Amino acid sequence: MPFHRYARDAAAPTSGWSRRWPDGTLDRSPIWASVDLRDGNQALADPMDTRRKQRMFDLLVATGFKDIEIGYPAASAHDFDFVRKLVVKEGIPDDVTVSVFTPARADLIERTFEAIRGAERAVVHLCHATACLWREVVFGMSAREVVGMAVKGAQHLVRLAEREPGTDIRFEYSPETFNLTEPELALEIANRVAEVVDATAERPLTLNLPTTVETHSPHVFADQVEWMHRNLDRREAVVLSVHPHNDRGTAVASAELALLAGADRVEGTLFGNGERTGNVCLVTLALNMFSSGVDPQLDLSDIHTVREIVEDCNRLPVHPRHPYAGDLVYTAFSGTHQDAIAKGLAALADRAEREGKDVGELPWQVPYLPIDPKDVGRDYQAIIRVNGQSGKGGINYVLKAGWGVDLPVELRRDFAAVVQAAADALGRELEPPEIWQLLRETYGLDDSPALPAGTDEHEVLGHLGAEHGVAFTRVHFTGTPAATGAPATCLVALEAGGRTLWGLGQADTTTDAAHRSARSALRRAGLHEGAR
Amino acid sequence: MPFHRYARDAAAPTSGWSRRWPDGTLDRSPIWASVDLRDGNQALADPMDTRRKQRMFDLLVATGFKDIEIGYPAASAHDFDFVRKLVVKEGIPDDVTVSVFTPARADLIERTFEAIRGAERAVVHLCHATACLWREVVFGMSAREVVGMAVKGAQHLVRLAEREPGTDIRFEYSPETFNLTEPELALEIANRVAEVVDATAERPLTLNLPTTVETHSPHVFADQVEWMHRNLDRREAVVLSVHPHNDRGTAVASAELALLAGADRVEGTLFGNGERTGNVCLVTLALNMFSSGVDPQLDLSDIHTVREIVEDCNRLPVHPRHPYAGDLVYTAFSGTHQDAIAKGLAALADRAEREGKDVGELPWQVPYLPIDPKDVGRDYQAIIRVNGQSGKGGINYVLKAGWGVDLPVELRRDFAAVVQAAADALGRELEPPEIWQLLRETYGLDDSPALPAGTDEHEVLGHLGAEHGVAFTRVHFTGTPAATGAPATCLVALEAGGRTLWGLGQADTTTDAAHRSARSALRRAGLHEGAR
Repeated sequence: MPFHRYARDAAAPTSGWSRRWPDGTLDRSPIWASVDLRDGNQALADPMDTRRKQRMFDLLVATGFKDIEIGYPAASAHDFDFVRKLVVKEGIPDDVTVSVFTPARADLIERTFEAIRGAERAVVHLCHATACLWREVVFGMSAREVVGMAVKGAQHLVRLAEREPGTDIRFEYSPETFNLTEPELALEIANRVAEVVDATAERPLTLNLPTTVETHSPHVFADQVEWMHRNLDRREAVVLSVHPHNDRGTAVASAELALLAGADRVEGTLFGNGERTGNVCLVTLALNMFSSGVDPQLDLSDIHTVREIVEDCNRLPVHPRHPYAGDLVYTAFSGTHQDAIAKGLAALADRAEREGKDVGELPWQVPYLPIDPKDVGRDYQAIIRVNGQSGKGGINYVLKAGWGVDLPVELRRDFAAVVQAAADALGRELEPPEIWQLLRETYGLDDSPALPAGTDEHEVLGHLGAEHGVAFTRVHFTGTPAATGAPATCLVALEAGGRTLWGLGQADTTTDAAHRSARSALRRAGLHEGAR
Repeated sequence: MPFHRYARDAAAPTSGWSRRWPDGTLDRSPIWASVDLRDGNQALADPMDTRRKQRMFDLLVATGFKDIEIGYPAASAHDFDFVRKLVVKEGIPDDVTVSVFTPARADLIERTFEAIRGAERAVVHLCHATACLWREVVFGMSAREVVGMAVKGAQHLVRLAEREPGTDIRFEYSPETFNLTEPELALEIANRVAEVVDATAERPLTLNLPTTVETHSPHVFADQVEWMHRNLDRREAVVLSVHPHNDRGTAVASAELALLAGADRVEGTLFGNGERTGNVCLVTLALNMFSSGVDPQLDLSDIHTVREIVEDCNRLPVHPRHPYAGDLVYTAFSGTHQDAIAKGLAALADRAEREGKDVGELPWQVPYLPIDPKDVGRDYQAIIRVNGQSGKGGINYVLKAGWGVDLPVELRRDFAAVVQAAADALGRELEPPEIWQLLRETYGLDDSPALPAGTDEHEVLGHLGAEHGVAFTRVHFTGTPAATGAPATCLVALEAGGRTLWGLGQADTTTDAAHRSARSALRRAGLHEGAR
């Protein structure tokens, strides 16, 4: 492959400073800023109509976003109209600030201000290319001329904002693509813009550093961000923001390392929609915070609904393996994993019972499950799914969860072989009712009439054993969780002709269950053909 | 959300050393090891049958993998049989080494050796849990007992390998989940196993460090890997491997930073299939290498076919935004991006012509496209797609690419408004033929009969202008790429009643095209109703 066509020089200054970010800790969530309605929307084959835009906006508000970019009003009539709709109808909650995106062209800036006329407050987000390739190919400008473009654009913002005294207007500035811009130039432009808009700690400029096209491993981006963070003229007057794209599949890491490096704010989208490979996924970032014990500052306790709405708005699927939200991410098929998960869940349930607490109050400690699915509104039902690769632990878990049946240890491996063979023969996963049916068929669930009251199970087994000249070597009653309403279940083993044969019985009482399981074992041994 | 339930302490030693990895450079590809047929397969709802397994194996070989884990033969009859099939039928190329996975239980180790009996060479991969939670919940063992388990397992491997003198058997060892294991313990176990198998530089042990469950930001993993790398007793006798999972969405970054930290080898899968959120995607990793000028050592020049086969084998989709391979990752809908891409492609084509080269020989320099789609077998056709958010640059690109029609600059913005309105009204993307049709309808493509030979276009326009009392203020012929076989296209503008009216004509000669476009403009101005 023609790798010679590509070269990426690291763009962070390498001398005169030493990085500190690798020693940092992610101990609080950044300011989350959604660009679903702008960067996300502009990357859709079928852009959101008004209904979908409103649905997305409402979701973002409900999830806890305070910083929402609602469009690029100068780009299309649809975007303009939606911004007007929110601004005019006062559809913006008091604690939410909306922003609108504009390039650096005077007529487009003016159109942008028209869109927010009458708003209580808004952020105008000025963005233009600063990287060398863009300067040369898109603008045909020198670096000096691009600095001039930024200054002129910022001055225009200030002038227009002064004409709207009724609106509290603040500014955001993005030099793009930051990661490919010479650091000294990016710093100079940022300082100039902060100066022009007279940024102060009270009225800060949001300085947003986009990897509009992700080109380096995340540690390089972290160096670039830290270098900016430590060299800005008015650091205290700047909200330092990052806007990572995912061309190299490392947007989440880029955001995290950038936060270590001094960033205060992250722009991204729900499930990572956005140009090409998308923006950084804010759901993943927030739940990474959550899973390391940090308040995520977003409410993702019903992740399924969040996903459903986003899929409706974007008309793009969330992948089955998407962190925290995909269909398969709390699921185990392999025997080893199923066994460990089943043991972990049991240990947690035991501890909860011992301490008189709910599992949800205990620290989460289950192998192969980084978070408790219930914390994001998913249930345990799908955790363990059974196919030809599943082992005894998982199969037993399914029977226990669904039918209250906890197989005796000696039987689990036998039955796992039966289940594996059935799944392999079908070439697909087995549903829990199929596993239960297989258990019934294999061990001959017996439905003989109930015994008269007063008999006990030892008596029954002794009597039946003597009658047929066999000994029942193992009697196993399984727990019957009250909630399931399942009857008592018994499994008994007898030895006949050098083989161990198990029988299964269920009834309302343990005695009847034992009776039925014994008859079933006898029938399997060919000793009780009369039983149906 | 109950974030208090979670806590993650960084697991890398913090004193007595200082990291070097952030100063490293990724300047060569690691050893790529595929676990598609093991870790990937065991995570599928519908595991691969023999046909799909063989298809995956063949793809891996064709792509250039030399290190392929082909199954977990002790786990299921299917896996066992597939390993036998490859080994017995000698279906393994000379430069490929296969490995088989086994837990540390004696009977399963023995079954694993049965599976590879008769092979020319193979790697037996021993893996068991070492992390605290697993020790306590799954094994009920102390750390000491787990060290004993590793040593005993390794001794068993050595003993069984000695009984197969005809097979060149090497070993891989994975302490899992490495990232949650106390570093000193992981180091001790690794050193002990290397000692037991008598690893040497000539016959190294592959020491694989899995983040079986990804729990930390990638810089922490890099610290853990570097600490191991620098503290191993027999570093020269070890191939240091990593096996990152993607629970936090940072597997690619974890692998890259681990390579900086000293790892030699990466285990992963094509497009990131694997337990829960999946394994690290080796396609992304390799093309990250490629896009930074490093030989990827894998042939991904026909990524669409690779994707198609993997989707067939796994029965899982590759997401439209998956780096390098998704349907949308070389596509731009937004006007700004389209404009820049069109300019970049044009600049590259110009340079190629100037230098008498093919574009494929030039360094790739196009805004918003990190690699040349052609380098992975994708074409340019889908790069620019048009909806209500698209601008003049993109629309012009579509007309030029499809019909050889390069609109005059003055007309582009006008026509973009027409296209945007049509796309908004339909609420969907427009296909290129629809855009062409819209151009014909808007500017009245005229099909008048050809003129007699000998007339020239100035004569025709002068004559028609005089006849109708108007002046044609602009005449624009567009390039007609030979390859398209498109006829000559002309657009002319006339001024009438204070308006500028454009007309469009196509013919085999420029004169006829001018004639037709003039008649079309006249008709639009109501001055030539007779034309059809």
